[in-house]
Amino acid sequence: MIKVGVIGYGYWGPNLVRNFAESGVSNVTWVSDLGEDRLELVRSRYPETKTSTQFQELLDDSELDAVAIATPISTHFDLALKALQAGKHVFLEKPLTETAEQARQLIAEAEKNDLILMVDHTFIFTGAVRKVNDLVESGELGDIYYYDSTRVNLGLVQTDVSVIWDLAVHDLAIIDFIFQERPIAVSATGMSHIPNRPANIAHMSLFFESSMIANIQVNWLAPVKLRQTLIGGSKKMIVYDDLEPSEKIKVYDKGITLGEDKEDIYKTLVGYRTGDMWAPKLDAIEALDAEARYFVECIEKRKTPINDGAAGLAVVRVLEAATQSMQQRGQPIDIV
Amino acid sequence: MIKVGVIGYGYWGPNLVRNFAESGVSNVTWVSDLGEDRLELVRSRYPETKTSTQFQELLDDSELDAVAIATPISTHFDLALKALQAGKHVFLEKPLTETAEQARQLIAEAEKNDLILMVDHTFIFTGAVRKVNDLVESGELGDIYYYDSTRVNLGLVQTDVSVIWDLAVHDLAIIDFIFQERPIAVSATGMSHIPNRPANIAHMSLFFESSMIANIQVNWLAPVKLRQTLIGGSKKMIVYDDLEPSEKIKVYDKGITLGEDKEDIYKTLVGYRTGDMWAPKLDAIEALDAEARYFVECIEKRKTPINDGAAGLAVVRVLEAATQSMQQRGQPIDIV
Amino acid sequence: MIKVGVIGYGYWGPNLVRNFAESGVSNVTWVSDLGEDRLELVRSRYPETKTSTQFQELLDDSELDAVAIATPISTHFDLALKALQAGKHVFLEKPLTETAEQARQLIAEAEKNDLILMVDHTFIFTGAVRKVNDLVESGELGDIYYYDSTRVNLGLVQTDVSVIWDLAVHDLAIIDFIFQERPIAVSATGMSHIPNRPANIAHMSLFFESSMIANIQVNWLAPVKLRQTLIGGSKKMIVYDDLEPSEKIKVYDKGITLGEDKEDIYKTLVGYRTGDMWAPKLDAIEALDAEARYFVECIEKRKTPINDGAAGLAVVRVLEAATQSMQQRGQPIDIV
Amino acid sequence: MIKVGVIGYGYWGPNLVRNFAESGVSNVTWVSDLGEDRLELVRSRYPETKTSTQFQELLDDSELDAVAIATPISTHFDLALKALQAGKHVFLEKPLTETAEQARQLIAEAEKNDLILMVDHTFIFTGAVRKVNDLVESGELGDIYYYDSTRVNLGLVQTDVSVIWDLAVHDLAIIDFIFQERPIAVSATGMSHIPNRPANIAHMSLFFESSMIANIQVNWLAPVKLRQTLIGGSKKMIVYDDLEPSEKIKVYDKGITLGEDKEDIYKTLVGYRTGDMWAPKLDAIEALDAEARYFVECIEKRKTPINDGAAGLAVVRVLEAATQSMQQRGQPIDIV
Repeated sequence: MIKVGVIGYGYWGPNLVRNFAESGVSNVTWVSDLGEDRLELVRSRYPETKTSTQFQELLDDSELDAVAIATPISTHFDLALKALQAGKHVFLEKPLTETAEQARQLIAEAEKNDLILMVDHTFIFTGAVRKVNDLVESGELGDIYYYDSTRVNLGLVQTDVSVIWDLAVHDLAIIDFIFQERPIAVSATGMSHIPNRPANIAHMSLFFESSMIANIQVNWLAPVKLRQTLIGGSKKMIVYDDLEPSEKIKVYDKGITLGEDKEDIYKTLVGYRTGDMWAPKLDAIEALDAEARYFVECIEKRKTPINDGAAGLAVVRVLEAATQSMQQRGQPIDIV
Repeated sequence: MIKVGVIGYGYWGPNLVRNFAESGVSNVTWVSDLGEDRLELVRSRYPETKTSTQFQELLDDSELDAVAIATPISTHFDLALKALQAGKHVFLEKPLTETAEQARQLIAEAEKNDLILMVDHTFIFTGAVRKVNDLVESGELGDIYYYDSTRVNLGLVQTDVSVIWDLAVHDLAIIDFIFQERPIAVSATGMSHIPNRPANIAHMSLFFESSMIANIQVNWLAPVKLRQTLIGGSKKMIVYDDLEPSEKIKVYDKGITLGEDKEDIYKTLVGYRTGDMWAPKLDAIEALDAEARYFVECIEKRKTPINDGAAGLAVVRVLEAATQSMQQRGQPIDIV
Repeated sequence: MIKVGVIGYGYWGPNLVRNFAESGVSNVTWVSDLGEDRLELVRSRYPETKTSTQFQELLDDSELDAVAIATPISTHFDLALKALQAGKHVFLEKPLTETAEQARQLIAEAEKNDLILMVDHTFIFTGAVRKVNDLVESGELGDIYYYDSTRVNLGLVQTDVSVIWDLAVHDLAIIDFIFQERPIAVSATGMSHIPNRPANIAHMSLFFESSMIANIQVNWLAPVKLRQTLIGGSKKMIVYDDLEPSEKIKVYDKGITLGEDKEDIYKTLVGYRTGDMWAPKLDAIEALDAEARYFVECIEKRKTPINDGAAGLAVVRVLEAATQSMQQRGQPIDIV
Repeated sequence: MIKVGVIGYGYWGPNLVRNFAESGVSNVTWVSDLGEDRLELVRSRYPETKTSTQFQELLDDSELDAVAIATPISTHFDLALKALQAGKHVFLEKPLTETAEQARQLIAEAEKNDLILMVDHTFIFTGAVRKVNDLVESGELGDIYYYDSTRVNLGLVQTDVSVIWDLAVHDLAIIDFIFQERPIAVSATGMSHIPNRPANIAHMSLFFESSMIANIQVNWLAPVKLRQTLIGGSKKMIVYDDLEPSEKIKVYDKGITLGEDKEDIYKTLVGYRTGDMWAPKLDAIEALDAEARYFVECIEKRKTPINDGAAGLAVVRVLEAATQSMQQRGQPIDIV
């Protein structure tokens, strides 16, 4: 059994504790939080788990194998670095870090100590995204034309980061997972409607070497909750609606056909093709449970996770570039 | 009765003929089209209407008061200019012209001859958009934060103009109608997936003097048809779904409340407010019928239409700037 | 070209005229209606069609092959009988007649004169119902467990017949078409909320020799329009929603599995099975157009229509029995 | 603090334990279940709660104030009777008992001992049903015309009772709560498609002294989950969809208007009225939590619950009559 310590018992931390506690392959031996009342809650729920307001206590416990960090993003780098230096494997909430530079340091530190560094890209462990990935990988969609996502709702406005660091990060993690290529440039726009706060509504377009384009629309001040992604390919197209209770993925046998115009060879003839729609049954995985077990598996087998530091870095690079683009009203920024 | 000649009897022309013929305030005395078979169709449906493959014949008819033009956009300027020079009032399909410069010339010509120049911004005559306009104008939404529209479907890929000239033009016309301010800059991105064709998927963000932002997402290769617009205000928010059979407009009494943090005066406290939703009954207007009558009324009373040349120009200026921005991956372009 | 005369140019008659006129295999040479203003409308639209307020004039025209009757149900029997006696093929609006006895007389008269008698069961000519029929017939659904339909909306309250004669008749026609067996008993309930009017809300359950059951819920005073049918089989299940713009038919690979309880052989073990959902592409038929051509084809080839007098009679028998059951609060009535 | 013992820790029991444990006004001092493994689960979650496979142990504890019973319906009567005889207040899962006669005995026993007998009609504690009740009570709907509910899904087929005892019971409890009158007769139909099992699909119509009618459609073998209720009144109409995440209640200002026909005084003229739709904000109550506190409040204040034995009896009487009607294919049965 891998011994895990969880740092941060606020909004997401309780989910980490529960999943690592019930995974069957790990124990939660420590929970750390700055709030004594939060720790009190931990003790009532998990009488055998040790608690501390000092995360250093966890790092000092030589029996502890790994830490899972669910604290505000501004603390990610320091906590993760110290944990890696203390020889602990690290499971870190998304986004990995505040800057690409920080991400690179964490990756280097993990490599140096032969430790697992994993970023919590929960969505890539869902049955829905797994199915999308299968469909893309198998070539069933054909060439990918676009990924177009709308992720909006009312609430949880954050004080320190803009809406793209909170909502678009999910799409960036999914894009990193399901496509073979990483974006080379981004144009982003956004606006803040709350004094002294970062943007609460934003859009970004990602460019790739191929003609694929990705659009991500995020909004903290929307009257309705939408989680809607269209993925268009040359052969088939997907509508992925994460709020649908059962048919989250719909595959449309629709598209265009290109022909040659006999009268004008410079002209392409466009035809439309519409066929059946198909909603495949999805695996009923609990994503965070699968991810927790996968983290343990990667530790035990010293396996590089798909959601490793490099994946976390790829997402942070886009967020950093998009933030810069947003400050210049969409000026495209190369992702280096 | 105002005598109207319709030029172009392809996809949209028949709607113009029917509405001007049945308006009760106008007659369609002429229809012109390059296709003899199209004119044959006109004669079978409207035995008393004269037809010609030569639009000049219409312009030469001194009894004719006005022409309505429903031809490809590349022909708009020439046809409209000649019609104005011949002393005819002009009703022109959107977008008004290919360039802002052309639009300015048409406006000047119409003014010189004291003629009505009207662009067919059909949506602003619908019950739904009228209701949105009322809600914005009355202040019921409070300060406007954003206009966010998704207008996608499969089909009707055009050969000569990109998807923004075909689909985004509707949103631009609506924005021009319901808001007091016009955009000052635009950032647009897009991509073509059909060889030698303009972009079939695109996004644009419009910036204004105020902190309002408008996002328009358009796509000709989407597996499903979506016509969904979110409009956020400081007091209320709207979801406008044009595909809903009855409740196209939903008004949400939702939003955020801003307070002062007593402990840190530089910090704004954000609260959430959710109340009732309300779907007002909409006037059952047939938009094109209302627009046709309005054109006749403007002619008779020499009244400046809300959708006059200036409104058409405003839309074309954005389309022109957006096209330029799109070629530079979102580089923001000022709208002059 | 078969020469058709249409009797009745009210709500539905214009659709019949248009479809028979544009079928390419028939002409509408006569239209009859009691209203002179309605006939005026006919003349303006179809200058070559003769009109009369006396339907007898049509019957006296020896050149006329067939009549299509779209008048109130109380006149169906008289008009159809006279038409058959005059040697005309008859296309009659649903429901065929007011009583089963009348239906039997019409069937006998048509047989005697070797004439086609067809009832307008439009829905069975739609792509959606055709697809359901294919799925049932091919055995893909397995044994049929139930047909369960909700057909409600606000409006068109009729003065002379209850809501089942107006709305449930569609389901009865569909049931008659897609299933091999006809109902043997019916229990119906309903209520009127308008003084001196027949029931505006009703439900009926149909019993068959097999264990299939059909439920039909109809309502003229519903706040929303619903056209929703569930069809359950031992292998697959269908949701047919006629208001869906594109995916009207959804086939669910769902159901139960029955096993034997090893510990108790009298006990059946029930398991659940959920698989993919599939929305087949439907033929884009215009139902009434297909039906008009089919009527002509049946006349020309002296072919017995699937929607012949017998099908019309089967529906009327259920309506008659259901009306009787409704008067006795659901007392089951055998269908003889 | 009221001391509660929970009997039955299967599907629903854990919810009762959790809610009584966290209510702040009650403690769960005992849990009883026949399965030792279920009790093991209780002990791990609630180390301070005593457990026993013998419910008699609970009844023997003179400190225990009340029992909450969540066992199969066939055991309700015996368990509740013994608990009342032992002087415990009783909270009993719906349906109250298997027969009206049993219900009457429990009511008598509770009265004799001055104990609270409450049936778990959870839905009447939801914000949605509370809102419907307010709208009905305030007269905003006008005269009630109908209650029409579709409650279907795949699964949880029960072995001992038909689907009406499992699903329709919810509607019967709601009807008993929101309307002033109780049904006087019922016609029910249904069918079983599983050997040796009671009906898995059923419909019932309830008749009242007034012209109100209630229709309830239930099905355990439906491909989709539906929880849709239409409530029609002379002034307004409601659509209540319990699966809607936020707008569960929609109030339509729609209906008919009745006028007198000047030409024929025996004829009523029917007009249609359509106005706004309105989705009121609902109280965010957790129903079972509210119900648990209400049970405690009724005990402490010796207050008769709205969901008392009489309410439970009213529901059982309908279920009993409906079961009888179903065996006779809809033969109406008076509810005595």
